[in-house]
Amino acid sequence: MKLFYSPGSVSLACHIALAEVGADYEAVRLDFSKDEQRKPEYLAINPKGRVPALVTERGILTEALAILAYIAQAYPQAKLAPLDDPYAFAQVQAFNAYLATTVHVAHAHRMRGYRWANEEASFADMRGKVAQNMAECFELIGAEYFKGPWVMGDQYTICDPYLFRLAGWLEGDGVEMARFPWLVKHFEAMRARPATRRAHEEQGLPV
Amino acid sequence: MKLFYSPGSVSLACHIALAEVGADYEAVRLDFSKDEQRKPEYLAINPKGRVPALVTERGILTEALAILAYIAQAYPQAKLAPLDDPYAFAQVQAFNAYLATTVHVAHAHRMRGYRWANEEASFADMRGKVAQNMAECFELIGAEYFKGPWVMGDQYTICDPYLFRLAGWLEGDGVEMARFPWLVKHFEAMRARPATRRAHEEQGLPV
Repeated sequence: MKLFYSPGSVSLACHIALAEVGADYEAVRLDFSKDEQRKPEYLAINPKGRVPALVTERGILTEALAILAYIAQAYPQAKLAPLDDPYAFAQVQAFNAYLATTVHVAHAHRMRGYRWANEEASFADMRGKVAQNMAECFELIGAEYFKGPWVMGDQYTICDPYLFRLAGWLEGDGVEMARFPWLVKHFEAMRARPATRRAHEEQGLPV
Repeated sequence: MKLFYSPGSVSLACHIALAEVGADYEAVRLDFSKDEQRKPEYLAINPKGRVPALVTERGILTEALAILAYIAQAYPQAKLAPLDDPYAFAQVQAFNAYLATTVHVAHAHRMRGYRWANEEASFADMRGKVAQNMAECFELIGAEYFKGPWVMGDQYTICDPYLFRLAGWLEGDGVEMARFPWLVKHFEAMRARPATRRAHEEQGLPV
């Protein structure tokens, strides 16, 4: 399989999951500063011009949430999701859907305001609200959804690399992670895992 | 089961899916004009203060994408998703994830700009871009993802009520559905299904 990624993006969550399950994969870097995600060669792979995209022997998958669930289902022995329990699986998917639809979107308003507005003043207004929104999201996650030590309790799942990736954006978004001791502990536990280290090394990122 | 919904919201997609599988459910209406979604009784059910929320015998599920997948998995005989094929299931999830993270979010900037900014001028700027963004999303869906007659081809899946719900927002967002003949055809096919009619009747909406 080939995973198309941009360093620092949400594709890191999928990269970590691929390493966790011991998949045979190659990570292919896109340089967003050169707009490589909008070049015809890449648009033929992912017409959305976004990352991640996972090239499988069956075809191409997009959307972090779907790719994470695919990795869990394609490598059941790794037990990255409760595959035999529709209710428990839905809880995993609901957690990741909240990250995708609310937390990631809140974060995106810091640097990608041009997606939803045209004026510089609007972008500044959006940037000014990101810290508050991100803090509220992580408050809610801590109060209502995070079980500990992993998101879903004792079992590490596809929720963990996704939470880890978004948590890594907090400081840049103006939120001190130290406000959330449960998150700091989770972040450190994630950093210590060999799969996390491997994905960072392959992306040329410090762990 | 109990489905908490607000008429006109994305919860309609879950309502239709529940009717499709013949689930034993009760639909419970929340009046957003009275801020019922923020009252303590409802926040105890869904701390996010959003719809849908599905109360099951095991507990409460949120996020349309996760609820739709749950309905498909909990009622496998209805064949609302390719449950035995991780790759095909991931395609379904990727389609719905795009609706959730990109299309629904684009739409939300018309009336819920206050989530991401503070100034009236920013809200107006956001509103001004909604039609273009929604049109681009449906262009992409038509060009790349919609197979026809249903989203995934011959088999009706959980992608269909979700697409139907978001397509129903287009006119209000300033986009003529007639621009997309494939979508008009899908919309009419959805309207003709008994489950779609039942969900509309239960929500007191015209079909």
